Amino acid sequence: MSFANAQNGSVGIVTPQKIHFEQQLTLECERVLNGFDLMVETYGTLNSDKSNAVLICHALSGSHHAAGYHSADDKKAGWWDTFIGGGKAIDTNHFFVVCLNNIGSCYGSTVPTTINPETGKPFGADFPLITIKDWVKTQAMLADHLGIDVWHAVVGGSMGGMQALRWAIDFPNRLKKSVIIASTPKLSAQNIAFNEVARQSILSDPDFCQGNYLELGKTPKRGLILARMVGHITYLTDEAMRVKFGRDLKTGKLKFNYDVDFQVESYLRYQGEQFSTRFDANTYLLMTKALDYFDPTQEVPNHEALSDEIALQLALKDTQCEFLIVSFTTDWRFSPERSQEIVNALIANAKPVSYINIDAPYGHDSFLFDIPNYKQAVYNFLTN
Amino acid sequence: MSFANAQNGSVGIVTPQKIHFEQQLTLECERVLNGFDLMVETYGTLNSDKSNAVLICHALSGSHHAAGYHSADDKKAGWWDTFIGGGKAIDTNHFFVVCLNNIGSCYGSTVPTTINPETGKPFGADFPLITIKDWVKTQAMLADHLGIDVWHAVVGGSMGGMQALRWAIDFPNRLKKSVIIASTPKLSAQNIAFNEVARQSILSDPDFCQGNYLELGKTPKRGLILARMVGHITYLTDEAMRVKFGRDLKTGKLKFNYDVDFQVESYLRYQGEQFSTRFDANTYLLMTKALDYFDPTQEVPNHEALSDEIALQLALKDTQCEFLIVSFTTDWRFSPERSQEIVNALIANAKPVSYINIDAPYGHDSFLFDIPNYKQAVYNFLTN
Repeated sequence: MSFANAQNGSVGIVTPQKIHFEQQLTLECERVLNGFDLMVETYGTLNSDKSNAVLICHALSGSHHAAGYHSADDKKAGWWDTFIGGGKAIDTNHFFVVCLNNIGSCYGSTVPTTINPETGKPFGADFPLITIKDWVKTQAMLADHLGIDVWHAVVGGSMGGMQALRWAIDFPNRLKKSVIIASTPKLSAQNIAFNEVARQSILSDPDFCQGNYLELGKTPKRGLILARMVGHITYLTDEAMRVKFGRDLKTGKLKFNYDVDFQVESYLRYQGEQFSTRFDANTYLLMTKALDYFDPTQEVPNHEALSDEIALQLALKDTQCEFLIVSFTTDWRFSPERSQEIVNALIANAKPVSYINIDAPYGHDSFLFDIPNYKQAVYNFLTN
Repeated sequence: MSFANAQNGSVGIVTPQKIHFEQQLTLECERVLNGFDLMVETYGTLNSDKSNAVLICHALSGSHHAAGYHSADDKKAGWWDTFIGGGKAIDTNHFFVVCLNNIGSCYGSTVPTTINPETGKPFGADFPLITIKDWVKTQAMLADHLGIDVWHAVVGGSMGGMQALRWAIDFPNRLKKSVIIASTPKLSAQNIAFNEVARQSILSDPDFCQGNYLELGKTPKRGLILARMVGHITYLTDEAMRVKFGRDLKTGKLKFNYDVDFQVESYLRYQGEQFSTRFDANTYLLMTKALDYFDPTQEVPNHEALSDEIALQLALKDTQCEFLIVSFTTDWRFSPERSQEIVNALIANAKPVSYINIDAPYGHDSFLFDIPNYKQAVYNFLTN
């Protein structure tokens, strides 16, 4: 397929745009940002009554660049290119697809590395903690900017799924459908524990410099590498790693030193190294805290006195959209049981919900894979 | 029960002894140690025909101090005190129980912090990598020293189970029973991946100083804390952490900074901090490599051409002892399936094997818990 013809297949060459918002943004932490920027990409065409817009929400290390290419010689497509395009699961022949880089994430939107207009220096450690609720608020401001009153759908995997759930709670009349993939109504203690290891890896790196590394010309590279390595293990499964690496040796024999012996070590080091060159340490900290803090039941009056099940039912009682919940059999980061908690709470509220548990061997990462059943389910839900 | 009466219950006050071995020890890595020390504790009395000796092999962070107390005001019993004593699962009224600190482990035996007689400085980074096979070799030298030709049993959990398995392979005529608890015939790629994160935590700590931190008056404390945190998560389960911590907040409210919010973070930091004051970084590296390298099938001729199952059968074909294999339902570090690989290989060889999968909620850590079924199974196997 040719980039020139975006009718079917790839959306072709896309150009991100930076949109500046002048308004003050009061965050959940009660601090205020005096204006902010969002990096945005769109694919497909907004129809005349503006009823065909689909919002894509990214996960921990994602960006606004969900589909297509940035130039003719760009080798790497957007992070969800298998899903977004003409005739694809999220069909740009029908839908106007919007993807943004959330504030606090390091791909061009307002972030810890942004110059704070009040000090003339990067925010660094002084950048406020952002929550899923804050992101959804900025996404609603983006919808206003684009003239979109109601999204046809809000779609997201993992942390993106939390945003799709938040949308249904915070702006029940502004979306028709919510697609929540490989997600959870809140992190478990084990999830938080892994995030805490990642944070401590960064915070304890001497080059982190209390978060002001940029100003001091440093990069907490070691911390970022470790954070990514531990994260990466939780995205895969024991079985997927066995199939991919087994106990294969990098050089065919044991070295009896602390160099790489096994392929899996080499792979993890490479993944960590790559990540450390493209991601920002303060962003990583912020993202993991946004994950940890996500828990819509905290807004339910008297939630401390309620069971988790009842609290979640009450948190979802005013939602108005249809839901598609997708989980993956081998995901142990956010297991199918976690998706089913959302499904059960919606059923208890007599809300329209479809649920599919996809048999896939790739663990949490499955949500990014090209799995026919999974794509068909999303396509059907969006188009029917 | 009184310390003075060790007939039933606690073994009372025990005194470790350091035993020096003059012999050269040729290691699997082909390097040679010119003599070495082992720290050893014994409980109970060796009978006249020396047929009642039981060897206890420790796991990653264990030591020779498996039972009893070191003084009258010692608050903390040995690491397996629930199992070892008069009338306990490993009954010191019947058995002479021997536990040693393996070489390379930092509780008094020859280790990276030992002064290398050849240089007058600590071995540090120059200490050779030790394997499970090497440990079993030193344990056989200890048996010779104690005049024990044949152990009534060799018992170990986790990495200790690997030693109990190695004994059955390397010295088939020197043990009657092998008890292999919460163990595995070899690490999976995921197991190795977690160990690699722990190693990189230590190796990338600037205070590690290429392993020569001691000489330079440093301690790679940050690395040790991270290594322990990630390890600790794998010893527990998601469910056990939910029961213990849930999403409980340390101070009752979110802080919107990178201090501790959740109890589980506080717990992990505390565990890491405590561990960093009592454990040595080079030992941690060495222990994780010994785990990674363990794979008895590597000695089977032509093993590359064989399936994992057949290779393991052949590795175990010359064993002569009876086996008890114990696993725990919620252990995801070394899951029941990994124990069953050993059981299946033994059955295929028509070897005498008993297997019990204990229903316990504590994950890998279960092997250290006071679980009645589990204790009874070990007691029965050792005494019948």
